[in-house]
Amino acid sequence: MRIYLDCLPCFVRQSLDAVRRITVDNSLQIDILRMLFAEMSKIDLNQSPPLMGQAIHRIVRKVTGVTDAYIEIKNRCNQAGKKFLPKLEELIAQSQNPFETSVRLAIAGNIIDFGVNSDMTEADIEKAIERTMKFDFGNNINEFKEAITQANNILYIADNTGENFFDKVLLEQLPMKKITYAVRGKPILNDMLTEDAEIAGIDKLVRVIDNGNDAPGTILEQCSERFKDEFNKADLIIAKGQGNYETLSGVDKDIFFMLKAKCPVIAKHIGCEIGTPVLLRQKQNVLID
Amino acid sequence: MRIYLDCLPCFVRQSLDAVRRITVDNSLQIDILRMLFAEMSKIDLNQSPPLMGQAIHRIVRKVTGVTDAYIEIKNRCNQAGKKFLPKLEELIAQSQNPFETSVRLAIAGNIIDFGVNSDMTEADIEKAIERTMKFDFGNNINEFKEAITQANNILYIADNTGENFFDKVLLEQLPMKKITYAVRGKPILNDMLTEDAEIAGIDKLVRVIDNGNDAPGTILEQCSERFKDEFNKADLIIAKGQGNYETLSGVDKDIFFMLKAKCPVIAKHIGCEIGTPVLLRQKQNVLID
Repeated sequence: MRIYLDCLPCFVRQSLDAVRRITVDNSLQIDILRMLFAEMSKIDLNQSPPLMGQAIHRIVRKVTGVTDAYIEIKNRCNQAGKKFLPKLEELIAQSQNPFETSVRLAIAGNIIDFGVNSDMTEADIEKAIERTMKFDFGNNINEFKEAITQANNILYIADNTGENFFDKVLLEQLPMKKITYAVRGKPILNDMLTEDAEIAGIDKLVRVIDNGNDAPGTILEQCSERFKDEFNKADLIIAKGQGNYETLSGVDKDIFFMLKAKCPVIAKHIGCEIGTPVLLRQKQNVLID
Repeated sequence: MRIYLDCLPCFVRQSLDAVRRITVDNSLQIDILRMLFAEMSKIDLNQSPPLMGQAIHRIVRKVTGVTDAYIEIKNRCNQAGKKFLPKLEELIAQSQNPFETSVRLAIAGNIIDFGVNSDMTEADIEKAIERTMKFDFGNNINEFKEAITQANNILYIADNTGENFFDKVLLEQLPMKKITYAVRGKPILNDMLTEDAEIAGIDKLVRVIDNGNDAPGTILEQCSERFKDEFNKADLIIAKGQGNYETLSGVDKDIFFMLKAKCPVIAKHIGCEIGTPVLLRQKQNVLID
């Protein structure tokens, strides 16, 4: 998915959020923002939005020397995710269809996203769970189950910290030997890193790799050889979140996207209402974008 | 008032609105936006926000050759204003305090602003009138009346097209011989020009001048000598709208600002809630900023 004009004010808003998070020095803040505007003056709309997000945060890191501005937020997200885990496990234990319930919960977990909404609360997570448990996904969950049964190598590409606990309960319902779980290679926003997967104990369930990259999505040409090998080898991709949708829709693979459509541009691209939980298949040779 | 960091996403949103209004050619749109970002990469936060607005729209005009992108909107605003005129006149005719009512209506008229809200409707204007008629301005309206009585030369600096009809009913309650009514010198957003003052018949009531400039506010050093003479000569300024507040708060003059606080940055600067109607005096030698 390419950059749309409506992404531009949002890039500036995100940049502002990032610089404010890192420094209260007003003159440093504006220095960084000036550099970001210079970067945006070279913007190519055929790129995917996370490439711009990556550029923004590279500048912020370079100027401030702060490599992980979202570490405190990630700690809070991990705490929130952990707090919800017993509830998630209970919902699955009580469910007549544990697989379906775990899919719904994994999608609900994608509400946790500080790139889009830095004011998210636990009540918002509660609401997202409630809504996603009732949402009509049509036949998509059955189709997802069937695709998993038929696949031999599944690459599960994670998104945000906090979701790790929601992904965990889904992974427990999947054929874990087939699955590799991939996180980002370097800090970017509140995206999950290897240590976050470990905090939720995901490394005890499945093989965890990182993609070697610092984009808030999966820009294949920038990823490590190891990640690319896993991606190419996989006959099914599970891609969580907007960043992975933005970078992988249009890539010729069998992909199930699981996300909450949090931004109007993405919702329009998918063809759904903003705020909708999404389970969307992009079949190989049948591209979305 | 200087540029705040929160103005930056709004500049981009305004730019986007302007380029979309002028052309549907996506590659031209992004060319203009790239130039705007280059301009913003040199931004000086000590400038007032309308200086950036001016720069944005100068680029848009230069690239597209369209000198007045808001002409249709201004026509609509004039039509809306004209439609409301009988109602405004009726409210004043029925009022026990026609002066006070006309002041309230002139403030309510400042809701008409496509720089801030391009989706404004007639129902919004109705609501603004209703709210402003009931709003508690404390003793400010009496103080305003007293200042007008004492002044010898009053410069009334206009803001948006559509407001001309709301200003007209106030002007009719004022000592018109003392008053000069000033509009912008060149097209900028939906700001009023001489022809708009004339459409409302304001030139039949008071002397109308323009400021010779294309900023969405009053950047004194850029204004014509004639405007500056009038400004210096005036012992009381009536300044309508946010753009005039942004550029004149901090200028050492006796000024009554009349506006609706439509943006969070300005509301915070004034110390009021967003959406509030404002009648605020900045006395000479007692600066706001």
